[in-house]
Amino acid sequence: MFTVNAFAATSASEPLHPITIERRDVGPHDVLIEIKFCGICHSDIHTAGDEWGMTTYPVVPGHEIVGIVTSIGSEVTKHSVGDQVGVGCMVDSCGDCVNCRKGEEQFCLNGSTLTFGSIDNDGLPTQGGYSTHIVVTEDFVLKIPDGLALDAAAPLLCAGITTYSPLRRWGARPGTKVAVIGLGGLGHLAVKFARAMGAEVTVLSQSLKKQDDGLRLGAHHYHATSDPQTFEELAGTFDLIVNTVSAKVDLDAYLGLLALDGALVNVGAPAEPLSLNVFSLIMVRRSYAGSLIGGIRETQEMLDFCAEHGISADIEAIPAEKINEAYERVLASDVRYRFVIDTTTLN
Amino acid sequence: MFTVNAFAATSASEPLHPITIERRDVGPHDVLIEIKFCGICHSDIHTAGDEWGMTTYPVVPGHEIVGIVTSIGSEVTKHSVGDQVGVGCMVDSCGDCVNCRKGEEQFCLNGSTLTFGSIDNDGLPTQGGYSTHIVVTEDFVLKIPDGLALDAAAPLLCAGITTYSPLRRWGARPGTKVAVIGLGGLGHLAVKFARAMGAEVTVLSQSLKKQDDGLRLGAHHYHATSDPQTFEELAGTFDLIVNTVSAKVDLDAYLGLLALDGALVNVGAPAEPLSLNVFSLIMVRRSYAGSLIGGIRETQEMLDFCAEHGISADIEAIPAEKINEAYERVLASDVRYRFVIDTTTLN
Repeated sequence: MFTVNAFAATSASEPLHPITIERRDVGPHDVLIEIKFCGICHSDIHTAGDEWGMTTYPVVPGHEIVGIVTSIGSEVTKHSVGDQVGVGCMVDSCGDCVNCRKGEEQFCLNGSTLTFGSIDNDGLPTQGGYSTHIVVTEDFVLKIPDGLALDAAAPLLCAGITTYSPLRRWGARPGTKVAVIGLGGLGHLAVKFARAMGAEVTVLSQSLKKQDDGLRLGAHHYHATSDPQTFEELAGTFDLIVNTVSAKVDLDAYLGLLALDGALVNVGAPAEPLSLNVFSLIMVRRSYAGSLIGGIRETQEMLDFCAEHGISADIEAIPAEKINEAYERVLASDVRYRFVIDTTTLN
Repeated sequence: MFTVNAFAATSASEPLHPITIERRDVGPHDVLIEIKFCGICHSDIHTAGDEWGMTTYPVVPGHEIVGIVTSIGSEVTKHSVGDQVGVGCMVDSCGDCVNCRKGEEQFCLNGSTLTFGSIDNDGLPTQGGYSTHIVVTEDFVLKIPDGLALDAAAPLLCAGITTYSPLRRWGARPGTKVAVIGLGGLGHLAVKFARAMGAEVTVLSQSLKKQDDGLRLGAHHYHATSDPQTFEELAGTFDLIVNTVSAKVDLDAYLGLLALDGALVNVGAPAEPLSLNVFSLIMVRRSYAGSLIGGIRETQEMLDFCAEHGISADIEAIPAEKINEAYERVLASDVRYRFVIDTTTLN
């Protein structure tokens, strides 16, 4: 065990603040990463504030981690000292269950080990990337390809794979029409991916406030969902709608925008149940689905796709001392489009 | 125009009774069918009682029609006098829209012409199969392959295609686990199809009352949904669940029975909206979808599949005078598994 600096929540009501935490010694299959940047994801804020009622304090959030390998275990073959690497939402899984064997470790039937807030194999709680270092088993360490700036690559590890995976699975490609609900941390990456995959891309945002940005990011069309005309004009249009907004929405209205065999895919979930009229699905054979990050193999595929297509997040880098302020601004949707903590400021 | 005998509802409150109706003269592309049998579908009952608020009286229900071609128009090439044929839920569509061109006429963007209760090209209401004859444009007439008994084939035209189509689309095949909710007119055919497609088939029924039947029809397993143990035992099991029950159900409970990438497909819809927790979808990437009959090409494929695999409905044939009694028994779920009217009793 060794001690590293970190930034943690120690209760639901207090601001996050600097602490020190223990990291395990580097085992035979482990990689020690000197963290350079860590994105701020909405899940961090939910966890710090115990909004899901499952937080054990202190908790160090952060699962959009990028850094440099500074040490490897004796059996490690996939990574070398000096490599640019990343860690996303998971740091381990059973590897044995049917879902892990399919490369879908996020759906591990024995429960994947989350980057923070899980109990690790050593019985200790996992602690995330608002920290100077992390030790992770090599299979859960991703390669950040050359050509991707580390700071702008960090959000790919969660926001990126969360949107890339459903776009791939539900077939965004030339000839398809894809809509993205919400232009935030997730949505702005969804737009870039869908455009790079060759789809015709529409942003559905509450207002037209970010329209210029949306078009600059790659969208072909931009519509305000506060305008009822949008739902008339676009009825039956889309092959795929990726909903990046976790708030309660009028599902039937959005399902009505789908063409034959179209799918509406949620990548976030509101706390309360949603209501829908089954006729919205039966008429033109629509689907309503959910998607959760992606497996390790697909996350690497996404990072390679990003390098090939020059895709990374639009970010605002901050020192660790600004984390609490950044949380406030995320809650006020005042970020274009992701905060990334410069974790070297923790030294 | 010519006059034929039929059995009709003339108001929401009175029993159905014999009337005569007009059929159009056989046009160049038309086929005149002497109807032999017509199945009783739940939609008939909804329409006769104006439960959907759209009925124009008098209405002759019936869209599970089989009979013999007795006359063809001058341009007809697909059917000959003497052929065994069938007519399902549709008798026409625009043929031009993107969905029609895909062979999905049930989703015609200009509205397909339903077998009863629609307005036909001649401006008159369409009238269904509780009748001695019907005139239908040749493209909407299906061939009933040799080897299928006409009476037991009738329900294939609606109940058959309604369940066959989602099983095919969502990939029922060897190595997949399929559940069928409800063992009625639709469900008993779903079980036969899923078994013939090579899937491992489970019936989920309210009670174990029809268990012997379910196993005889081809199910490998049979569980009572009134037993909470069922939902624990089968959690995460199925690749596909076809829900043939239109009543309100606990969606989250059924979604919990799906494995990774599994789909719950409704082929009926309750009148009230349903509620679901989006986490039920996001966790193991499940889909909730709807399906509506099938296109003409797929309906023919289904009939050919039935002939090849010896599949038809389990029926109880009745004379026309027993239609009202049969309606009562359908509402009481007292039929194994479909009533078929011997329409020669209308002569």
